[in-house]
Amino acid sequence: GSDLELKCINTIRVLAADMVEKANSGHPGAPMGCAPMAHVLWSSLASGGVGRAHSASNPEWWNRDRFVLSNGHACALQYIMLHLSGYEDCSMEQLKLFRQVGSHTPGHPENFCTKGVEVCTGPLGQGISNAVGLAIAAKHLGATYNTPDFPNIISNKTYVICGDGCLQEGVSGEACSLAGHLGLGDLIVLYDDNKITIDGSTDLAFTEDVNKRFEAYGWHVQTVNDVANGLGDLRQAIEAAKKVTDKPSLIKIRTEIGYGSPSKQGSASSHGAPLGSSEVVAVKSRLYGMDPDKSFHVPDDVAAYYKQQAAEAEEMRVTWDAVYLKYKHALPDKAAELERRFKHELPEGVFDNLPTFIFGKDKANATRKFSEACLNAVAPKLPELMGGSADLTGSNCCQIKGSPDFQKDTPEGTTIRFGVREHAMAAICNGMFAYGAFRPFCATFLQFAGYALGAMRLSALSKFGVIYIMTHDSIGLGEDGPTHQPVEMLESLRAMPNMNVFRAADANEMAAAYQIALLSVHTPTVICCTRANVSPLENSSRVNAMKGAYTVVEAEGDGTPDLVLVATGSEVWRCVDAAKALQSDHSIRTRVVSMPCQELFLQQDEEYRKSVLPGNIPTLSVEASSEHGWHRFAHAQIGLTRFGMSGPLEQLYMKFGFGAENVASKGKDLVDFYKQRGVDVPDLNARPTFVNFQGNDH
Amino acid sequence: GSDLELKCINTIRVLAADMVEKANSGHPGAPMGCAPMAHVLWSSLASGGVGRAHSASNPEWWNRDRFVLSNGHACALQYIMLHLSGYEDCSMEQLKLFRQVGSHTPGHPENFCTKGVEVCTGPLGQGISNAVGLAIAAKHLGATYNTPDFPNIISNKTYVICGDGCLQEGVSGEACSLAGHLGLGDLIVLYDDNKITIDGSTDLAFTEDVNKRFEAYGWHVQTVNDVANGLGDLRQAIEAAKKVTDKPSLIKIRTEIGYGSPSKQGSASSHGAPLGSSEVVAVKSRLYGMDPDKSFHVPDDVAAYYKQQAAEAEEMRVTWDAVYLKYKHALPDKAAELERRFKHELPEGVFDNLPTFIFGKDKANATRKFSEACLNAVAPKLPELMGGSADLTGSNCCQIKGSPDFQKDTPEGTTIRFGVREHAMAAICNGMFAYGAFRPFCATFLQFAGYALGAMRLSALSKFGVIYIMTHDSIGLGEDGPTHQPVEMLESLRAMPNMNVFRAADANEMAAAYQIALLSVHTPTVICCTRANVSPLENSSRVNAMKGAYTVVEAEGDGTPDLVLVATGSEVWRCVDAAKALQSDHSIRTRVVSMPCQELFLQQDEEYRKSVLPGNIPTLSVEASSEHGWHRFAHAQIGLTRFGMSGPLEQLYMKFGFGAENVASKGKDLVDFYKQRGVDVPDLNARPTFVNFQGNDH
Ligand SMILES: [Ca+2]
Ligand SMILES: [Ca+2]
Repeated sequence: GSDLELKCINTIRVLAADMVEKANSGHPGAPMGCAPMAHVLWSSLASGGVGRAHSASNPEWWNRDRFVLSNGHACALQYIMLHLSGYEDCSMEQLKLFRQVGSHTPGHPENFCTKGVEVCTGPLGQGISNAVGLAIAAKHLGATYNTPDFPNIISNKTYVICGDGCLQEGVSGEACSLAGHLGLGDLIVLYDDNKITIDGSTDLAFTEDVNKRFEAYGWHVQTVNDVANGLGDLRQAIEAAKKVTDKPSLIKIRTEIGYGSPSKQGSASSHGAPLGSSEVVAVKSRLYGMDPDKSFHVPDDVAAYYKQQAAEAEEMRVTWDAVYLKYKHALPDKAAELERRFKHELPEGVFDNLPTFIFGKDKANATRKFSEACLNAVAPKLPELMGGSADLTGSNCCQIKGSPDFQKDTPEGTTIRFGVREHAMAAICNGMFAYGAFRPFCATFLQFAGYALGAMRLSALSKFGVIYIMTHDSIGLGEDGPTHQPVEMLESLRAMPNMNVFRAADANEMAAAYQIALLSVHTPTVICCTRANVSPLENSSRVNAMKGAYTVVEAEGDGTPDLVLVATGSEVWRCVDAAKALQSDHSIRTRVVSMPCQELFLQQDEEYRKSVLPGNIPTLSVEASSEHGWHRFAHAQIGLTRFGMSGPLEQLYMKFGFGAENVASKGKDLVDFYKQRGVDVPDLNARPTFVNFQGNDH
Repeated sequence: GSDLELKCINTIRVLAADMVEKANSGHPGAPMGCAPMAHVLWSSLASGGVGRAHSASNPEWWNRDRFVLSNGHACALQYIMLHLSGYEDCSMEQLKLFRQVGSHTPGHPENFCTKGVEVCTGPLGQGISNAVGLAIAAKHLGATYNTPDFPNIISNKTYVICGDGCLQEGVSGEACSLAGHLGLGDLIVLYDDNKITIDGSTDLAFTEDVNKRFEAYGWHVQTVNDVANGLGDLRQAIEAAKKVTDKPSLIKIRTEIGYGSPSKQGSASSHGAPLGSSEVVAVKSRLYGMDPDKSFHVPDDVAAYYKQQAAEAEEMRVTWDAVYLKYKHALPDKAAELERRFKHELPEGVFDNLPTFIFGKDKANATRKFSEACLNAVAPKLPELMGGSADLTGSNCCQIKGSPDFQKDTPEGTTIRFGVREHAMAAICNGMFAYGAFRPFCATFLQFAGYALGAMRLSALSKFGVIYIMTHDSIGLGEDGPTHQPVEMLESLRAMPNMNVFRAADANEMAAAYQIALLSVHTPTVICCTRANVSPLENSSRVNAMKGAYTVVEAEGDGTPDLVLVATGSEVWRCVDAAKALQSDHSIRTRVVSMPCQELFLQQDEEYRKSVLPGNIPTLSVEASSEHGWHRFAHAQIGLTRFGMSGPLEQLYMKFGFGAENVASKGKDLVDFYKQRGVDVPDLNARPTFVNFQGNDH
């Protein structure tokens, strides 16, 4: 590169060192090593750069070329580039607030904190897997909305920088294998091959041939041996990668971590801690033309250079705007649908076709079948529903009828065959949501949410309303046994903030699950489904289920009941049977509460909550899952305190105490417990809820 | 193969079809396709088989060649082979009880149900990753205990059958990359390349070049194109694989799922459901010499064949026994240590050097540093402690001093460099524990337990006492921000059966964590550690901490306290400060309870539990984690109801309400809540605990 380019790159490096030094925390090494890549990614074609389309004035412009920093710990680099490109969230003041409470420059990139950041990265392997989702989204949307006259309404590329850590993680292997299978030609990954991980040399644990592995995945693979002494090779490689349109591209770029640091360059010591003030001074001295007394300094010519690059990128957006106006005029319906999708607005009447179960008329079925009916009831109006299963399409009942596969040569299809890749599946859905214009869904057995939890949590944190269809949601899975039977999974998900966990008891409640899931644009929903049939409930209600919990069977006669049974999913009808037996055999007047979604119930007002669960009436929870969390709502539990076992469902339900008989017996025991001892029923509602968090930052 | 061999293989196929048919559930396709592999794996060298060392009379013989069926859904195959080889747990009666409650033949292999089964498989990708752990264990143990005179005390190989599903999962990619790096020459994987997954053809989602990928990992790779019409190629490939001692081997074997089924061979329809009785009849007719009227039939010559193979395998054990007697005589100390290790007995005085913190004398520190001290206090006496970190060795403080790396050319080392591979790390530790003679440990940030949960759960289910060192256990991680700050993770792990979650408040409690972890041979332990310093506690106690919870500060004066604060880990000392302030500012007499391990506390008798947490005294829980689960122990909570944020630790603790001031303020609010309203404090202990599980089966 030219002298000015070298100065640009060195300015980035020094800024990164300054930011980490001021924060007294962070990762200077990767930004210093990757600065040449960032420079090229943020330079225009005219300047010999990538010519990435993006817009500082409109960071959410649909057709921007996405950029994902998969090695999120290098985020100083991303904030610096956004700053130099004029993005409002990354002012110089914000660079100085790096890693401080409430800043737009947190310690790892957060999409909801910083405009210009597409996804939360930092948990290694996620960013590159999200990028596969971004590329799927672009390919599908382009195939669906472009026309011969308007071939570039959606035509963006997705660029990634990633490091060794991201490529060691299994999730990235899953995602990249699928990316190769799908031939995602608009995905270009720059691999920062610096031979260093936190523990030291990659020789310690990572000596595989990465290029060969990616070739095996079906990727186009290149190597660039030097970006320190010139950018020509990198430019050529990117140009070649752009020309390969039927395969994703990996460019392995040999770099040195902490480049420019006299004593830490090439060493793990530059990875995760400030260089130290004297070392920062040395960096500035070593990088010619830098004044060691200046911090957070951008030389005028460097500032002007990136301003010009940003202006050229902005020009692409302006051009696109003009084309889009014509598109809108020529194809108003398509444009309206695209706009609706990007605004995450639901079309009129989308819930109208959700099934209503008529007791005594409709047939009993598994809730996974009800889920299939609901999915197919809303899908015709929602082209943004795109997704599939991790190789369990039939078992998960998640096929949208008539929806062809999204494959290399059929990008207009909306059914994704994720393969046996649960973690990548969730990460890809995050990427698709991040793209905008999608409500991705994905499916597996509930137990295997445990494989995907790293990415599911990022749905919740990132406020991505991904819909998770999780079937076989209890020991009711039966013969496959304890390796496949969830115990702790419901509680794992319920303990996650911003995650709705819905376990429907029948068709009406399932309709509520879908309505809530679609309305919750920024909260992911887990829809838990049974493998086996549930008996129909006489008084179930979609409207009531949307409140999270409601009385599905009231105790006979007037006045407060003697006992409350609170249950979810396939345990509710057994409680209904138990309640009848308690009334007829022991005159214990029993209310049954169905609680499909704890999160929604806790959002109701106190009066409603107490009307459903009075708290001072003996209450027994019944759920074929860990008892954790249920002590809040109930005095005693029928739950799982051990793993399940292999056997037919009904035998397991009896063995583990979920038969109506045991429920009735324990219900009576609970009533007797207080009666016989003459102790007060402790009022579970007589407790305050404290708000402890100060402020309302992101 | 010979006619008899074909008859043997067909007998296996037909038995598998019969078992699934009788169970009316299961997976016939894979056993039918893989039967030739099983035949060769269970045949002696003299018979042209693998000559695997194993012993039906002593299934836990140390030097047996391990076998892992990674595609665990094919387990009918494994049970059949164990049956034909004379393993007691797999009698013909047990084959008929396939997938029934309490049988030794559950729906997926379970190590604790069936002697001869090494690990729980079924969750795809786990078995092959466990096998990497088994191979590491064998290599290390051989290097440590063999001598030039006794080179084969530990010299076993590890064989795996796996399918497409296992190789799509990221966890297997992580493990196999590490296996190649480590040059595990005694690991041989037979890949059932049947071009079918549950959804249909592998063309749907899995078109990568698997062989090339494994070559990239550094494996020795071969292809066998046919095992239906002869076993010669397979035999040659296995022979070649055995000769390659510096690389693990993958043999890709082209098979047909459901081989022998006229209408389902080669189709996904044979994967996960009975073939149907008429189809089973057709299988028997088609497989020459089979009587369609006979079920569960083993022809005499077939039975005699496998009996002979098992006898030859048994002979290897007898020969080894004789050698081992000589070894024991020549090297009594080594033999005694090996025997102690395989019995999981702890040596005398192993806890003697665990540190005791002396208040007022010793220095404050991070609990991760206390963990390091404890690990290093017990390690000198425990060569079975082998493990390491997922590339965070320094941050996790998990280096045993003076312990060299376990690497390709230094197999005697006990420090494993797992790389950035959390899921494989946990799965490998499971394999090492399954080998026997090891107490594996592994480490990462607590948040990234979420990447490893699929395997951690299998530690718990399989009763493998793996030790998980999980540092950076709360928002106290600070600037790295919410992607790295656990919220739901403690609760996820606590909700898992047979998993001890220990969050120590100081050095004495950390010593308790290590003592409990080592004593809990069949329960994994998660040791959660802070990044930052904790203030020393005056009355902490190892003995008390081992009870799970105890009063660390009693309220001033006599009688019951006015308030109880219950906390864990780094929140305890803040509660101590709050208690002092409540006493001095408001004369609220406050007890502080430290609860490092809920699981252990719940195992104490009722009297002890009530003495610590009376239940009817206002109780406030304080933990920088999800509030879920705490309603059981406390009336009100200070916890996390949202994700954390990036910033310095102390600012975050204040912002989220964990400063002593907020704790005191909310403590006073809680006391006032009941006083001012004149309502009784609900007695959280006035509730029955029901035992709902019937029987005591595995
Ligand atoms: Ca690196
Ligand atoms: Ca297969």
